[in-house]
Amino acid sequence: MAETDIKKAVVLLSGGLDSATCLAIARSEGYEPHAISFRYGQRHAVELEAARALATTLGAASHTVVDIDLRAFGGSALTDNIAVPKDRNLNLKDDDIPITYVPARNTIFLSFALAKAEVLGATDIFIGVNALDYSGYPDCRPEYIAAFEAMANLATKAAVTGASRLKIHTPLINLSKAEIVSRGVALGVDYGMTISCYDPDETGAACGHCDSCQLRAKGFREAGLSDPTRYQMAGP
Amino acid sequence: MAETDIKKAVVLLSGGLDSATCLAIARSEGYEPHAISFRYGQRHAVELEAARALATTLGAASHTVVDIDLRAFGGSALTDNIAVPKDRNLNLKDDDIPITYVPARNTIFLSFALAKAEVLGATDIFIGVNALDYSGYPDCRPEYIAAFEAMANLATKAAVTGASRLKIHTPLINLSKAEIVSRGVALGVDYGMTISCYDPDETGAACGHCDSCQLRAKGFREAGLSDPTRYQMAGP
Repeated sequence: MAETDIKKAVVLLSGGLDSATCLAIARSEGYEPHAISFRYGQRHAVELEAARALATTLGAASHTVVDIDLRAFGGSALTDNIAVPKDRNLNLKDDDIPITYVPARNTIFLSFALAKAEVLGATDIFIGVNALDYSGYPDCRPEYIAAFEAMANLATKAAVTGASRLKIHTPLINLSKAEIVSRGVALGVDYGMTISCYDPDETGAACGHCDSCQLRAKGFREAGLSDPTRYQMAGP
Repeated sequence: MAETDIKKAVVLLSGGLDSATCLAIARSEGYEPHAISFRYGQRHAVELEAARALATTLGAASHTVVDIDLRAFGGSALTDNIAVPKDRNLNLKDDDIPITYVPARNTIFLSFALAKAEVLGATDIFIGVNALDYSGYPDCRPEYIAAFEAMANLATKAAVTGASRLKIHTPLINLSKAEIVSRGVALGVDYGMTISCYDPDETGAACGHCDSCQLRAKGFREAGLSDPTRYQMAGP
């Protein structure tokens, strides 16, 4: 591919395991990735430092951190003074949406990614949502992503001029956590740089007990790989 | 209707003519309106003062101003150091999207409205988009709004639990500017409090020459009403 043919893509990057893998996949597919992260009032804002380091290491062409204050609305353990649930049973049914769900978060994140894509002239957005080993969030399901893509294709200049079609890539959506980890390791992702925990300490050390820590540990265990996560003294 | 039956609605309120009318309509239809405005780096941020006054006067139960910096992306005369076009021919074709278009703006605004609705327990969102006397923006078209509503109904807790269906109300979508003004006057909207101009001075006085000023003036003219807009010394 000639250098002029390199396609730009916007990649949502939280600093966690999934989004880091997603960035590595976008790069491996030949895209020039432009990472976007959000400072949204999350209690685990230390993940943004991880995102910054990952963007550099994994070869993002740019990295934008957008400030939005979702605490203005409240309603989630990730942004409010509500305890993060620990040691829960992860065999969730579809209608068990945990308190760590942040109202409309992925819709807001994807909307900003859409704005960035339009300004960059990119028609590809990558998001590391996952429909298997996920936390029961409505905005991680394939039908949601398809609906967002349909809406996005009516929302922008390109939608009117017919210049191009926007595509939302979800390379992890049908992978188990073990498969995601294996894929990332094959692509050279250093998972020691990622932070998955919903309730890390200020150094980024993980609690080992929240849903996200449990899903991650299960993934590494099933993949037969050791997890380089640093845990807090008390856990796991 | 008993007081316990009053339904909450989220109303996007810019401080302009259309959104003020939309708020008055939501109230007239028996909703308890919760207004939401955005400080997004717009050059006409004076409209937020108008929004604040309108929210009070028109009986909003609450008013949230959300800070988001769309200048981080650029790409519009409304947020960048690009001149606002003046005295343009308003007989636009669909593929003439003016430089005042802000990439993905309504998608971002509606996403925040969705978050606010979910936290409030509201299933109704009002937005004053208009498909007739509009500025050629893709995200003001009925097909776009329908697609956003479909996506929103897959995005939230209610989407999973089936508790309720979210509805995006666009009461102005098929009205001419003259009809909007007539409707608002009948509902007691004081249009002297609204700011439509894309390029007002710091006191809120309008330029009289941008697309928005031209559309507004045409609306009042066709409605046979006098426009209480304060103009800058030079215009209109």
